[in-house]
Amino acid sequence: MGLEAIFEPNSVCVIGASRERGKVGNVILQNIASNFSGRIFLIHPIAQEIEGLRCYKSVDELPEPPDIAVISLPPEKSVDYLESLGKKGCKVSIPVSGGFGESGSRGKELEISIKKIAEKYGMRVIGPNTVGVIIPRSGLNTALTEAEKSTFPSEGALSFISQSGALGLLSMDAASDWGLGFSSFVSLGNEADVSENDVLELVGRDKETKSIALYLEKINNVENFLSICKRISKEKGIVLLKGGLGESGNRATSLHTGSLFRTNFSLRGIFAQHGIIQALDETQLLDYGMALSYGRPIFGKRIAVVTSAGGVGVVSSDLLEMKGFTLPKPSGAIEKEIRKIISPLGSPFNPFDMTAEATDDQYEGLIKVLEKSGEYDAVLVFALFQTAGVSRKMIDILSKFNRESSLPIVVGIIGGEKSKEILRKVIKNEVPAYPSIDRATNGLWVLGERGKYLGGISNEHSP
Amino acid sequence: MGLEAIFEPNSVCVIGASRERGKVGNVILQNIASNFSGRIFLIHPIAQEIEGLRCYKSVDELPEPPDIAVISLPPEKSVDYLESLGKKGCKVSIPVSGGFGESGSRGKELEISIKKIAEKYGMRVIGPNTVGVIIPRSGLNTALTEAEKSTFPSEGALSFISQSGALGLLSMDAASDWGLGFSSFVSLGNEADVSENDVLELVGRDKETKSIALYLEKINNVENFLSICKRISKEKGIVLLKGGLGESGNRATSLHTGSLFRTNFSLRGIFAQHGIIQALDETQLLDYGMALSYGRPIFGKRIAVVTSAGGVGVVSSDLLEMKGFTLPKPSGAIEKEIRKIISPLGSPFNPFDMTAEATDDQYEGLIKVLEKSGEYDAVLVFALFQTAGVSRKMIDILSKFNRESSLPIVVGIIGGEKSKEILRKVIKNEVPAYPSIDRATNGLWVLGERGKYLGGISNEHSP
Repeated sequence: MGLEAIFEPNSVCVIGASRERGKVGNVILQNIASNFSGRIFLIHPIAQEIEGLRCYKSVDELPEPPDIAVISLPPEKSVDYLESLGKKGCKVSIPVSGGFGESGSRGKELEISIKKIAEKYGMRVIGPNTVGVIIPRSGLNTALTEAEKSTFPSEGALSFISQSGALGLLSMDAASDWGLGFSSFVSLGNEADVSENDVLELVGRDKETKSIALYLEKINNVENFLSICKRISKEKGIVLLKGGLGESGNRATSLHTGSLFRTNFSLRGIFAQHGIIQALDETQLLDYGMALSYGRPIFGKRIAVVTSAGGVGVVSSDLLEMKGFTLPKPSGAIEKEIRKIISPLGSPFNPFDMTAEATDDQYEGLIKVLEKSGEYDAVLVFALFQTAGVSRKMIDILSKFNRESSLPIVVGIIGGEKSKEILRKVIKNEVPAYPSIDRATNGLWVLGERGKYLGGISNEHSP
Repeated sequence: MGLEAIFEPNSVCVIGASRERGKVGNVILQNIASNFSGRIFLIHPIAQEIEGLRCYKSVDELPEPPDIAVISLPPEKSVDYLESLGKKGCKVSIPVSGGFGESGSRGKELEISIKKIAEKYGMRVIGPNTVGVIIPRSGLNTALTEAEKSTFPSEGALSFISQSGALGLLSMDAASDWGLGFSSFVSLGNEADVSENDVLELVGRDKETKSIALYLEKINNVENFLSICKRISKEKGIVLLKGGLGESGNRATSLHTGSLFRTNFSLRGIFAQHGIIQALDETQLLDYGMALSYGRPIFGKRIAVVTSAGGVGVVSSDLLEMKGFTLPKPSGAIEKEIRKIISPLGSPFNPFDMTAEATDDQYEGLIKVLEKSGEYDAVLVFALFQTAGVSRKMIDILSKFNRESSLPIVVGIIGGEKSKEILRKVIKNEVPAYPSIDRATNGLWVLGERGKYLGGISNEHSP
């Protein structure tokens, strides 16, 4: 299928590029030009060059068929260009403008034309009315937000498919700032040709993608969607934020199809049967995606909590129990081993509280004892950098443990900018790590759901 | 009551100060010396001066009774110094070290001695086993975390009382980084003398304090606590994170008293009757505190959502409905007025979607129409700065609206570092504002609960 071209395009053609700074046609060009190392062709009826790049008068004049074309022009013109791009042999076209199906019957007709052009030439069309794609590994970034106003993601293992371009860009801006990387982002737009199921199949086959996050308002072919998810989810975790569950949200999405998804807050069960974990907002969506990308499934309920702050241990224990986990005390033998490691003022029970006297070595020693004990199914480590004995060495200790140990680990690092800087490094090292107690315990919950699904156990608790 | 001295101390005496960088006795001194502008006295048996400050050999030698004394010495020595401080006429003493009641019967005896000394001299003692107090308005900061490793709060309207010093410091580090200010922070420690009820009464009387956040693991006098809350909550919002609700958390808090609070996840009802809103983690605790400090109570269920990102409108609508709110469509007349303001591709229904073409003026015009309409009980505004037409002018627009309008407003600003910079300014201007959809809708929920409590309506929904 031609869609694969978005992962390693050799050339990109931009139609509707503008030299006026701040204009959409300029922002898109800037984002492509500053990230993409392949060939860039511009089409412009008059200009000779824009931003130092040569312009061709028409698609026909291009020296080769472009792999990707990005079109930022009004609807009718966009469709004209799609015809010539198809004829030229372009693989994937992305008309970004709105004013199609969402604005009335003429726009709907244009979308039907797009579908016909796509089929006629075997060219795939993403959109229209889309912010396009961001593929960090190839530097393809067609977003229409300025780089000065937001952070674009670096390479990673999470693919993000969104029916809202803005929600996608905003939440990636936030998550990228925490260090989360992405294998791809696709804004579906009006789906004249390429649907959520097409992209789902695409990222399902993609080797860089370890898990998939979806924001969907309408699901065009529910049965098909669920069966694709069921197949892919054997290998990759899937998280879905379904927008339009309530009356007003549903009204906003103008959802008229798929009664299954109408005004229905409790889809968790249906989703879970197909390997889909439901998120309720954009933070959960990407938090869960991170856990599924970087963490190991948890096969069991027994969690060990490691902390240097008593209160953090207490609150996380409460939340974990609410989420269906248990925090068993260690056996006498393990308790003894732990007493040898931690401060006498600490607690060798569970939550394991090392007190503010905690050191890097104590952390490392303790999680190794827990790993060897076989008494726990996962460990939640709060690495708190405000105390004197905890240093950046923890970044390596945690990363190594997550890479090498079979005991699943989730990390919590709470604090301001200085803690965030360290959290960012831990996440960049592909450890599921979070800046709050609740988000960290949710990370465990997701890995527990994943474990139940892979182990064939039905889920009981919600986060 | 002498406790009031922590708000405007003229002098602080530090006992156990150390010149060795990184040591607790040095960190505390650094934190005091770099923030406090009043007189600082040191007591040291040998040293002439530490960090450029003169040392006295004993408490007796001090030229005047200090308002506050901070003692960083082993238990027995701390008690000896408390005796001489009481005799000298010190108002509030803060012995920070652990090793008291939490470590055995000898420690418990020492706590009884502390209580006796406090009563004998009318001196109040906070702790022992405490990180002390942070009072931004007076620059009194006795925390034992280094300033390079965390952010201390600036002045604000939220008082934070915590039975876990570390949980308190960590969550203030995080919240301060977002721009939230505090009127006071008190770490209760072992409560040999000063109890949660004493500090609650203190901040209840404090004019700078508009709302109160509590992290409590044990409540020593439940009946008293609830009745104090009921009284204070007529004027000030109260949020409580109760640690130790589950079995393991309860074990960790060694809670042996107060069966009311034992292994009981559903305290929301009892709390609500006494004007207390329950939080479930540290983020909720301070998020709710911010809403109660800066926002207006919401008397009703009708919310207007203003956004420039369709998906954000949809997801927030879903969450608001789950939390018991409605999003009614505007009347025909108001719809017409709104159509005049926003892009023709936008939605004049609710959620009100201005699309990526939104401008500062459109935001301002739209919220003013909503305010005048009388059709809504509150407005949730997502100010998204990634788009071209939205500028820093929004900071003033939102701040002015929150200050002057009687329509309650909550703001959501989603994104990475660049958005956070703006969010920080909005929060510093005392607007309840949050970095995610869920947290923003929780802000509305809290103000709705506050409205119901003040209006005498019982609560129905949880966040």
